[in-house]
This record gives sequence, C-alpha cells and structure tokens, in this order.
Amino acid sequence: MEKPFFKNLIKIEPYTAGEQPKGGDIIKLNANENPYPPSPAVQEAISGFDAEQLRLYPPMDAAPLRQAVADFYGVDRSCVFAGNGSDDVLAAAFRAFFNSDKPLLYPDITYSFYPVWCDLLRIPYETIPVDEGFNVRVEDYCRENGGIVLPNPNAPTTIGLGLDRIEYLISSNRESVVIIDEAYADFSGVSCVPLIKKYDNLVVTQTFSKSRSLAGMRVAAAIADPYLISCLDAVKDSYNSYPMDAVAIRAGAAAIADREYFEQTCRRVIATRERTAKRLRELGFILPDSSANFLFATHPGHSAEKIFTYLRERGIYIRYFRKPRIDNYLRITIGTDEQMDRLIEELERLLGR
Amino acid sequence: MEKPFFKNLIKIEPYTAGEQPKGGDIIKLNANENPYPPSPAVQEAISGFDAEQLRLYPPMDAAPLRQAVADFYGVDRSCVFAGNGSDDVLAAAFRAFFNSDKPLLYPDITYSFYPVWCDLLRIPYETIPVDEGFNVRVEDYCRENGGIVLPNPNAPTTIGLGLDRIEYLISSNRESVVIIDEAYADFSGVSCVPLIKKYDNLVVTQTFSKSRSLAGMRVAAAIADPYLISCLDAVKDSYNSYPMDAVAIRAGAAAIADREYFEQTCRRVIATRERTAKRLRELGFILPDSSANFLFATHPGHSAEKIFTYLRERGIYIRYFRKPRIDNYLRITIGTDEQMDRLIEELERLLGR
Repeated sequence: MEKPFFKNLIKIEPYTAGEQPKGGDIIKLNANENPYPPSPAVQEAISGFDAEQLRLYPPMDAAPLRQAVADFYGVDRSCVFAGNGSDDVLAAAFRAFFNSDKPLLYPDITYSFYPVWCDLLRIPYETIPVDEGFNVRVEDYCRENGGIVLPNPNAPTTIGLGLDRIEYLISSNRESVVIIDEAYADFSGVSCVPLIKKYDNLVVTQTFSKSRSLAGMRVAAAIADPYLISCLDAVKDSYNSYPMDAVAIRAGAAAIADREYFEQTCRRVIATRERTAKRLRELGFILPDSSANFLFATHPGHSAEKIFTYLRERGIYIRYFRKPRIDNYLRITIGTDEQMDRLIEELERLLGR
Repeated sequence: MEKPFFKNLIKIEPYTAGEQPKGGDIIKLNANENPYPPSPAVQEAISGFDAEQLRLYPPMDAAPLRQAVADFYGVDRSCVFAGNGSDDVLAAAFRAFFNSDKPLLYPDITYSFYPVWCDLLRIPYETIPVDEGFNVRVEDYCRENGGIVLPNPNAPTTIGLGLDRIEYLISSNRESVVIIDEAYADFSGVSCVPLIKKYDNLVVTQTFSKSRSLAGMRVAAAIADPYLISCLDAVKDSYNSYPMDAVAIRAGAAAIADREYFEQTCRRVIATRERTAKRLRELGFILPDSSANFLFATHPGHSAEKIFTYLRERGIYIRYFRKPRIDNYLRITIGTDEQMDRLIEELERLLGR
C-alpha cells in the first residue's frame, strides 16, 4: 500500500543509538560521558541566566563562546567556529570541505558517523585499514584524495598518534583539507591546534561533551585558518543560522574559561583509566594503551559479546560493536573509581578469580 | 594566489543576517521577535536546572518536549518532531521530503531561506508569483511538482489563507508532501494541525521563536503523520543526533505547557498590531490586513528605503528588502504599545503632520 508521495521521501538507514538506560542503579559506561559534573561556573551561568533575553535571537556567531575558545588556545577569534555538538560541526565541515570527485579517506575502524555523513551528503569515500595492532599508518594516506578525516586519538581503538605523525600527514596532503577530530585529545594531552598557524589546510575539531562534561549542552568548536572558518560559517548560515542557543553559549564559555577545573577533571579520569587498564590486564585482558577516556579491550579466553551481556544483566552498561575486525572487543568508558571497582569485581566473578 | 585545496571548498553565497544592534536605546522592530518575555515557567525551568546532569547526553528524541507539544495540540507523540529552531526543522524536512526531479513549488515572495536550502541540498524549484495584491492563489499550485512549501500566514506579506484554501491545496496534491510553515500562525488563530489526521502528506512546522518568546532558545516542532515524522528522525539521526540540549528541552516544554500566558501574550500583540495598522493607514500607508506579528506597509508618497533610513537614524530598526516587487515596502515587527507610539511619532514628523 505504497503512498504516491513515498517516492520523494529520503531513503536512508537511520542511525541506531546506544542504549540510554533509565534507573538509578545502572552504571553507565557506554557513551564515553564524563563521570564528573561540569565546572561550578556552568551551574552559575545557567542559574543566573535572565530568561527575558530569550525573546531575542542569540548572537548568530556565538561570539562569547568563540572568544572563550580563542582565549583558551591563544588564537584569534577569527580562527574559531562553534556549533551544536561535534556532530553538527563535523557535518558542516564535511559539507564545506569535501566537494571533490576523489574519495575522502579515513580509517576502516573509526567513528561510525563518518560514512553516514558521506551517504547523506553524497561524498565519495575510501577507508584505509588500520594495521593488525589497530595503528593508523599515516603513510597510507599519501595518495590521491578529496580530503582526510582522522580522529586523534582514534575511536574506538583509543590509540593516539604523536604530533610528528599528524604533521607528516598534513604536510603530505597540502592539496586537501585535513580534519583532525580531537574529541578525546584532552585525555592524551596531544593537540595539533598549534599547527593551524603553519598549515592553512588543517581543521581541528573539539567537543565539550567529554573532557568538559557538557554532553547535555551540545557545544563544540572547530579551529582553523580564518578562510576555512568562513566556509564553515557559510554552510551554517545556509542551513540553520542560529544552531547555538543563548544559554549554551553562556554555559560553554563558562566551562572553557575554568582551566583549573578542567585540568583537574582530566587528571582524575586519566588516573582511573591507568588503574583500570592495569587491573584488566591482570585479569587477562589485552588492550592498547589508551589516550582517551575509555578502554578498548579483548580477552583471549572469553567472548566479548558474552562479557557484554553478563555485565548488562548486572546493571553495568558498556559498548559492544558487532563489526568486522572488532567484534571480539569491548569499549569501556572510564567512570569513577567506585564504578570501575564494581566493574572489576563483576569481571573477577565471571573470570573465576 | 589560489590554494590547491580551494577547489574542494563549497561555493555558496552566505546568507546575510539582519542587523543586531547593540545599545539600550534602540527600538528593535526588525526580526519579528516578541516584545514580551517568555512564560515565567521558562525562568523557573532554567534557574532550577541541575547542571550536573549535563555530563550525560540529552534524550535523543527530546521526548519531554515532544510530549508537551503533543499535549498542546491533542495529537499522539509519534506525530511530533522537535528541532533546534524552525530553520533546523525545515532544513531537515527539505532533505527528507523533496527528493524528486520535479520542482518544489513556493511563492515568489516568501521566506528567503527556501531558495538557500534548495541550493544547499540541490533541490530543483520553481516560484509561483503571488497576485498583484500579494495573495497566494492555491489553484496555481495544482500542477506537477516534487513538493510544496507555503508559509501561512505568508512572510513578509502578512497575508493568511483560510483553512478551506489550505485543505484545497493539500487535497489537490496528494502525490507530494506539502509543508505548511506556521511560524506566525499563532497570531492569526488559523492552524491546519487538525488536518494531519486526514492528510498523511501534510507537514506543519511551528516555531517557539515568535509567539512563545523563545528565539534565543532555539526550539521548534513539526507535526505530521508518524511515517513522515520517522523520515525527519532519520535525517536528524544522520546529521546531528542531538540537536536539542537538555536545557532547551526543559524550557520549551515549560513554555508550551503555559497555555494561559501564551494566549494572553498573543492577544496583546494582536491588539497592538490592530492599533498600529489603523494609525499607519491614517498616515497614508497602504497595508494588507496582517495575520502575523508584523506589518507590511508601503506609502504612495514616500520611498520605503528613505523611511527605513530615516527611522534607523532615529534608533528605530525595521526591515527593508531590496527585492523585486517589494522594494517599496517595509516590514515592521509589532513591539510594545510604547514602542509603536514612538514609531508613529517619528513617522508623523517625517510625513509632516
């Protein structure tokens, strides 16, 4: 009983979201969220917000937020774009920068939204296999392409590349725009933002959802040469001129201005990550050194899917991907020390120690 | 000195925004904003918001907001989509529904974002001239097309169509999706939302930016048959899964739940509109009866551009479009009675009364 107008509707495979469990007792280690609240300055910014000003449109360029990001990184405000979460910024960047018949290149194992944007925006692409240890070999990207996008550290593998490797990649591809997606970079301490002054084909994206505990507020930024930023603005202004509301602009600016809280929170997450990685290895898990706020682990003696289900039944939600090459791996977000203790206890029980 | 990667950058004419004057003394009648603050329930929702929950992703489907919209209109929640302002919702709808080789139809004088989305999303389109009185003749839309989008009331003309005309348009185009953009419908009292139960090819879009005084919060909705809503969700989930932040969801739900405040605010704006229209006509202006929160006026003896400039120099910002057919018209947002008195005073001075 196909309706006549169905022929004009979009044909697209909707993205399937991770589980959002409700209920107080769940330990949620499945969305790479931060276990700690945002800076107290965020609560102040929200509580003190005068709702009367909401009758007016927000600043179209989210200027107070862009300025705060510029101040944090020591760049000019004209080098900063802001958007409604990393996905909004990356989608605009794909539309702005990848208009070529040649393929966009990215790793075969990486953020699963990249192929979705390519399909939606009709961008040709080619995936480049990571090696057997899940490492990205930047030499493999020195070939004809219409653009490159690479998360550093990569997800879900947790493996980060050093700045010299990233610079090699960018300098070898001066005919393309190279996007380095630094969603998790604050947990490695390696950022290529300083390279934007040297390479005008580099775009660095950052999110406030992970290291700044603002997943619920939808705030992200891109940092690049002003000309590339103007292209991002042109796409924004042709799609939705005001993606960021006045409260999010204020809250985001407050979050990034509190450098001390941010550094302290990152240190806590990193300490818990190292402690958890050590204990997982003692239980027989194999995992790369993580540069992110999550771990990517496999166990030679136990199926990842079974461990995933076992933990889920006990109220601990982690992530399992039924995908080629990684279907025996688990992605485990770093929670608080107490949450990770509970995880380890359950795993000890399962693995019979 | 064209850089090699420039060839892959998007070529697009960036949208030029209206002026956002700063300074306390400006009377801002140029963006169709509401002169009154949002419902007190919005301030409560924001002030009482617990920032700690921002560390988690917001509900992907903005469920509390969709439910509040469904309650307001007496439809099922599955008939409601929510987005980051009307532009976000309309852009998703264009992508979801207008995938045809046949042209999308809309009036030659209408919301200026429609051609921008068509260019961005590569949608063929044809504009249908309004008549010499700026009226939309729905009969002109009974021709082969890939979809139809029509604001009711239309902008910037302020002219609304009755429900019978809208139903004629929808029922004559059952092979296409018809979007009725009701950004200003709350100021006319005519909404075709009840028709969604009868016509599964109808999509009604609504914004919270005008009648609910939430331009700064970026909240909008679409109401349609659940199948069309699922197409909008597929587009959203392929572009940016979480366009609405947790605070905006809460504030939007609070705003739409306060029906009494909403009705009272609309009544005040309408009363000021009628009073202002009468006085403009006394000054010799010609203007259609407005169904919106703004007026569209021309003066036989004075150039619109000169009046625009004159008012601007006196701190009163209205809107002037240098566009075919309407380049001797002014768009004037309805402010408070006091603001409109100031406007009339300045016009009396200019027109020598």
